[in-house]
Amino acid sequence: MTLAQHIATLGQQARAASRVLAAAACAQKNAALHAIAQAIQNQRAALLAANAQDLQRAREQQLAPAMVDRLTLTEKGIDAILTSLAQVAELPDPIGAMDDLRTRPSGITVGKMRVPLGVVGIIYEARPNVTIDAAALCLKSGNAAILRGGKEALASNVALAGCIAQGLQQAGLPAHCVQVLDTPDRAAVDAIVSLPEWIDVIIPRGGKSLIERITASARVPVIKHLDGNCHVYVDASADAQKTLAVIENAKTQRYGTCNTAESLLIARPVLAALLPEIARTLARHEVEMRCCPESLAALQAAGLPAPLLRAATDEDWDAEFLAPVISVRVVDGLEEAIAWINTHSSGHTEAILTENHTHAMRFLREVDSSSVMVNASTRFADGFEYGLGAEIGISTDKFHARGPVGLHGLTSQKWVVLGDGHVRA
Amino acid sequence: MTLAQHIATLGQQARAASRVLAAAACAQKNAALHAIAQAIQNQRAALLAANAQDLQRAREQQLAPAMVDRLTLTEKGIDAILTSLAQVAELPDPIGAMDDLRTRPSGITVGKMRVPLGVVGIIYEARPNVTIDAAALCLKSGNAAILRGGKEALASNVALAGCIAQGLQQAGLPAHCVQVLDTPDRAAVDAIVSLPEWIDVIIPRGGKSLIERITASARVPVIKHLDGNCHVYVDASADAQKTLAVIENAKTQRYGTCNTAESLLIARPVLAALLPEIARTLARHEVEMRCCPESLAALQAAGLPAPLLRAATDEDWDAEFLAPVISVRVVDGLEEAIAWINTHSSGHTEAILTENHTHAMRFLREVDSSSVMVNASTRFADGFEYGLGAEIGISTDKFHARGPVGLHGLTSQKWVVLGDGHVRA
Repeated sequence: MTLAQHIATLGQQARAASRVLAAAACAQKNAALHAIAQAIQNQRAALLAANAQDLQRAREQQLAPAMVDRLTLTEKGIDAILTSLAQVAELPDPIGAMDDLRTRPSGITVGKMRVPLGVVGIIYEARPNVTIDAAALCLKSGNAAILRGGKEALASNVALAGCIAQGLQQAGLPAHCVQVLDTPDRAAVDAIVSLPEWIDVIIPRGGKSLIERITASARVPVIKHLDGNCHVYVDASADAQKTLAVIENAKTQRYGTCNTAESLLIARPVLAALLPEIARTLARHEVEMRCCPESLAALQAAGLPAPLLRAATDEDWDAEFLAPVISVRVVDGLEEAIAWINTHSSGHTEAILTENHTHAMRFLREVDSSSVMVNASTRFADGFEYGLGAEIGISTDKFHARGPVGLHGLTSQKWVVLGDGHVRA
Repeated sequence: MTLAQHIATLGQQARAASRVLAAAACAQKNAALHAIAQAIQNQRAALLAANAQDLQRAREQQLAPAMVDRLTLTEKGIDAILTSLAQVAELPDPIGAMDDLRTRPSGITVGKMRVPLGVVGIIYEARPNVTIDAAALCLKSGNAAILRGGKEALASNVALAGCIAQGLQQAGLPAHCVQVLDTPDRAAVDAIVSLPEWIDVIIPRGGKSLIERITASARVPVIKHLDGNCHVYVDASADAQKTLAVIENAKTQRYGTCNTAESLLIARPVLAALLPEIARTLARHEVEMRCCPESLAALQAAGLPAPLLRAATDEDWDAEFLAPVISVRVVDGLEEAIAWINTHSSGHTEAILTENHTHAMRFLREVDSSSVMVNASTRFADGFEYGLGAEIGISTDKFHARGPVGLHGLTSQKWVVLGDGHVRA
């Protein structure tokens, strides 16, 4: 059997299993989640041993420390996996809910029922915890899953797949509800993204290059998350104290996350009053500021430490630094800020600091990003903070799902029509 | 300028216009719709003259009568266009509505705002009325539109584009909100579907071959409508009178529509009691029945007219006949009917006839089609019948939009976060 045939077989099996899972009761899906947790709990030693094999190979191949870190499974990491399984079991079941039932003039009653997408393919890096997270969210939302993790985590993933299979079996669900792809061949990814007959959506979780490669070749819809060049705009009527608190949090709470602020816009009328204080706050965290000429002059005049100030290049305005660096630019006011953001932002998350209601509402309406915020830190853009209970990814697209994607993003709706022998006139 | 550059320029212009349109008030969009109607009303003679040019060329090129029919603009057709513009103006504006605002434990208030998709590309056949329909729905939903109609309608579309431009100008909206592509070159379509930077979604309206060609090459998401192989399943507990009425309507009201029933499944326990009567009803409309061996024998035994009875081939089970033809198959009961439908249906619309509540609910839940119905004719699967007010197409996909697509299908939602200086802990 060729690799393509093998993947097509997985797809067919997933499709068949998805029919059963789509009709499964919430209690049965939750039973599977708890049984998977129990299997993991029972096999802690075996899981850690499998992970040790992966880590051994990773060290031999001199993987980057950050990669080894994500690959590592610890007792505490297993505890976190068990907690997350229990949390997903607690979430309300989105499937089967009927909405908006209304009787039409013709006499039929029309509404919508929430249903699974069907088969979800998830392609991710060598992070064993994602195997369980993704399986749990797909299971709860009634979708069969085909999981393809980074090959460096192969032994860990095969061991986890065993626990998943055991849990599914115990709950009386088909083993093919979750299939973990155990071929290290990279061509398997190309095969997965080319099967629209069997796979309904692909969710890549990983770096930009992985996502761009998948998007370029995919014949299946992709929920994709590209970069987060998040802006904070300080309006002329911003409150100084809120501004300092929000910018400090948005830029410095964590540097490597996609919802970290990377660009600061400030309205000219408050440049002199607010920017030096903002800059001093950032300087305490050693954040480098890449400035437009006007903001650079203002900060130099205010005596900010020279090593942290630089003139911005054209590239800086579009960059996701993921580092203690921020670009700084003076704008006339709201109009220019919105236009600038809609040109340079990656469409992830933007915040305005203002006490002006009309400016707040215009910013919310006119900024074309997946999250828009008033007087709040961009760091809040997150499925847990938004109350989704769990997050399978963040979409920077507008189609189907936008922003943090929880269980709902893994569902669709079908129309239901209830009649009593009604015919169309 | 090459064709690709020309299309990219249209895309850029559309993107810029879409920013203005996304922020436009409902009153302004409605003013544009009314002004377009007024311009059409004022230029009836010129529109009919332009259409006469298209018809002249069509006759010279010996176009099929059905195509000429769709191409023809009459006084009555113009009246219908004016009515549809007025109806779209009457529809509630979906844009800007905020939903589900909830305060989270962190103190931020999180909700969703409905927003336009951005730029919509619509590719359709030589039907001048679609030019106005599509423009009106995009305008109302705040989306810039690039319209590419069949080249046989070029003169008509250019004349209509003039009316649209006039209406937009009168309402103070950018002319690039609606751009009608006036190059007959077929390569223009390939260019439109390859511009994800400038175009957010493609909606093809036309035959299956057009849609398959676009889907194969598109790098932009497509809302696509493939075929409608709609099933009616007669359950063991079906009511005879409702069954006859629904099947007659579903099969014979119109033959060429995608929501017409093409396949009949009947539960074995009611084969003898119901199928002959159903067949006699269909025979009155000269509908040919392509039967499985068991149903064929039953109908022959009941003395149905031989010329209307045929043994079904394997292809018949997957066919969209669009003609007075129906496939007929006996099944054991509900389980087999659902499994059969989920294998052979095109996922458009399916109906069950039953008085059994549990069977009705299982059919609704387990049949994986965009519309599922109980005791109602498949012919109801339609945006107007469902109360959408208007329909830009029917999606047989599950991603983003499913079934009849109205204004909502042309929108997305973004997250809004309201704080008061909140930071993430």
